[in-house]
Amino acid sequence: MQILASQIKGYLSNSSMIRKMFEAGLELKAKYGEDAVCDFSLGNPDLPAPAAVGQALADIAANADKPFAFGYMPNSGYGYAREALAEHLSREQGITIAPSGLIITCGAAGGLNALFRAILEAGDEVVCPAPYFVEYGFYVSNYGGSLKPVPARPLTFELDLEAMDAAIGKNTRAVLVNSPNNPTGAVYTEEELRGLAAILERKSREFGRPIFLISDEPYRFLTYDGVEVPSILPLYPYAIAVSSFSKNLSLAGERVGYVVPSPNMPELDELIAALTLTNRILGFVNAPAIGQALMARAIGSQVNVTVYAERRKAMTRVLDDAGFNFTMPKGAFYFFPEAPGGDDKALARALQEERILAVPGSGFGCPGYFRLAFCVGEEVIRRSADGFRKVYEKLSK
Amino acid sequence: MQILASQIKGYLSNSSMIRKMFEAGLELKAKYGEDAVCDFSLGNPDLPAPAAVGQALADIAANADKPFAFGYMPNSGYGYAREALAEHLSREQGITIAPSGLIITCGAAGGLNALFRAILEAGDEVVCPAPYFVEYGFYVSNYGGSLKPVPARPLTFELDLEAMDAAIGKNTRAVLVNSPNNPTGAVYTEEELRGLAAILERKSREFGRPIFLISDEPYRFLTYDGVEVPSILPLYPYAIAVSSFSKNLSLAGERVGYVVPSPNMPELDELIAALTLTNRILGFVNAPAIGQALMARAIGSQVNVTVYAERRKAMTRVLDDAGFNFTMPKGAFYFFPEAPGGDDKALARALQEERILAVPGSGFGCPGYFRLAFCVGEEVIRRSADGFRKVYEKLSK
Repeated sequence: MQILASQIKGYLSNSSMIRKMFEAGLELKAKYGEDAVCDFSLGNPDLPAPAAVGQALADIAANADKPFAFGYMPNSGYGYAREALAEHLSREQGITIAPSGLIITCGAAGGLNALFRAILEAGDEVVCPAPYFVEYGFYVSNYGGSLKPVPARPLTFELDLEAMDAAIGKNTRAVLVNSPNNPTGAVYTEEELRGLAAILERKSREFGRPIFLISDEPYRFLTYDGVEVPSILPLYPYAIAVSSFSKNLSLAGERVGYVVPSPNMPELDELIAALTLTNRILGFVNAPAIGQALMARAIGSQVNVTVYAERRKAMTRVLDDAGFNFTMPKGAFYFFPEAPGGDDKALARALQEERILAVPGSGFGCPGYFRLAFCVGEEVIRRSADGFRKVYEKLSK
Repeated sequence: MQILASQIKGYLSNSSMIRKMFEAGLELKAKYGEDAVCDFSLGNPDLPAPAAVGQALADIAANADKPFAFGYMPNSGYGYAREALAEHLSREQGITIAPSGLIITCGAAGGLNALFRAILEAGDEVVCPAPYFVEYGFYVSNYGGSLKPVPARPLTFELDLEAMDAAIGKNTRAVLVNSPNNPTGAVYTEEELRGLAAILERKSREFGRPIFLISDEPYRFLTYDGVEVPSILPLYPYAIAVSSFSKNLSLAGERVGYVVPSPNMPELDELIAALTLTNRILGFVNAPAIGQALMARAIGSQVNVTVYAERRKAMTRVLDDAGFNFTMPKGAFYFFPEAPGGDDKALARALQEERILAVPGSGFGCPGYFRLAFCVGEEVIRRSADGFRKVYEKLSK
């Protein structure tokens, strides 16, 4: 019997490539043992939360017997948590954010859903550079919209502004960028972002409604070689930053994030009211109480990022030695090398034979490449060297 | 400039009556002081969480420095948390639930949204008895469906099975009941539920697709005078229970709940797979990690319910003394008396003049009544007696 909505039934039969890798990985681990598999397939940060998180949690535990300790609060978040976040973001984004000018959400994923529910009409399009985080397509289609990927420049994954300009039409409601990027590690420069903002200013005038520029930036804290991540909020009045504490505080499972529009947006109050409503009616109601309390107390601390820098070096050596072609990631914890021979699925299968798990670029709308998540121990990276070498030799012939 | 989806813009201009009361209440409290206002408008449990919650939290805090302590887990929840929940529900619902036969969600609200995203096509209807929790309408319309309220029997709020039968048509995808009921305190008997199931069996055959029976039951633990809440799961193969730990563990802000379909549903695995997907793509990703861990450790304990029983008695005395007409609530922490004179909004205004906050029945699709939430101290209830008397005298003339 047909019990599911047809769209959901379709999704299930095309289930995500990342999940398939995950399941294949579980099988390999069950067969050969956890330590015999080099798993680069999942972006689940393995670094422990900073000490401030544990201290904050002990403090919350000591007050767990108070009435309303974990009760409802305003749908936009605890007042004190919004204040702490606004102060932090004002510094980080280089523009003054009021506590009433942001909303705390159930992770960045919850924030993007609350945002798309608020702004998308059925038939609206969201343009984004490809490769892209595969969940974006679902977040947009949940509300009758469609994602329109525009290929970034080959190998460097810089924005192709001409192609984006051409792709933005009267149904375009927003452009969504992710910097530092998952899966490429690219960080867009201020010049690229100013160029994009200029296009959006022009197109918004042309089509008579503002086109939002949304930046999903949970990896902002994690860049290498002194690279800075420019803020979009001062650059464009219809800019909106979305982020989470999943990576910098290692709180991915607790689900704490936020949406912060540019304070220069003329309709700022209306958008915040709408986000407060959609956050409620989508069933989030509010971001998790304990996660909010942890965030407010631990904000400013972060996991030990030098660990990621060392792993990036180790991964670079492995890929260079094997012969892979890639651009150094400027941020986040991913490499996105070319698949030798060009067939990313064949590459992933060949790696699996060497007990190495990676995700084909097709899973990110970008065939011909593959993603390696290096949020794994350095010894795993070193252990993978032989396997990568064999696979490269086999497929590059 | 039009920046919002038109539906959301419409919602904002008709913002919820409960919220309006909330704001009026804040004004009254600011003017006269917190203690001078008797606030019966909000269902935010004031009882502290049971001791097991604080102990569990201290335990989690002591392990906060472990890798993955708060990392991603399967989208359906921690394996051990699903096991603890399945064991608990097997006892509570009187039918064996497998850990793989349920999903942990971001509260009951998140569970209902994941469920409606999975099963509703645009144009589908969800039938529910009125009065009803006002958020249901939003949860259904998020996915292009519409809520079709059917008045319950006056004053007793028993199900009007004939009226429900007549309301169920070819577009009906589900019937949604809430027992113990918010706002009436009604608890449906096994006979009523069997009657409803029989109607759904017949209508499902007639229209060639199963009509789901969904029971939202976060107040199941809270009944009075020995009333039992029958489980729908053994009664009907397309039954689905949805609930949360917001009330029994006083964890409303942390957002932990679940969806559990009848183990007799032929497509159980497919529905669980769909819920796991929709829970992910709606941006919940998974129920909050810490909330899940608390639930698994504290399940079976609950807030001190004798406090609610005493308050119910106190509220009964106040309403009886004043002269109000009402049915005793069998469960939950609400009274839903008739508004003397019949105008529930006029009644709410008159109560406000006495510094008493209540929500007009219109806010629950049931004009002519009003809701009193008695999750407030007994002294507040006693203090309200004069005000209720004056208002009754004034409006019943």
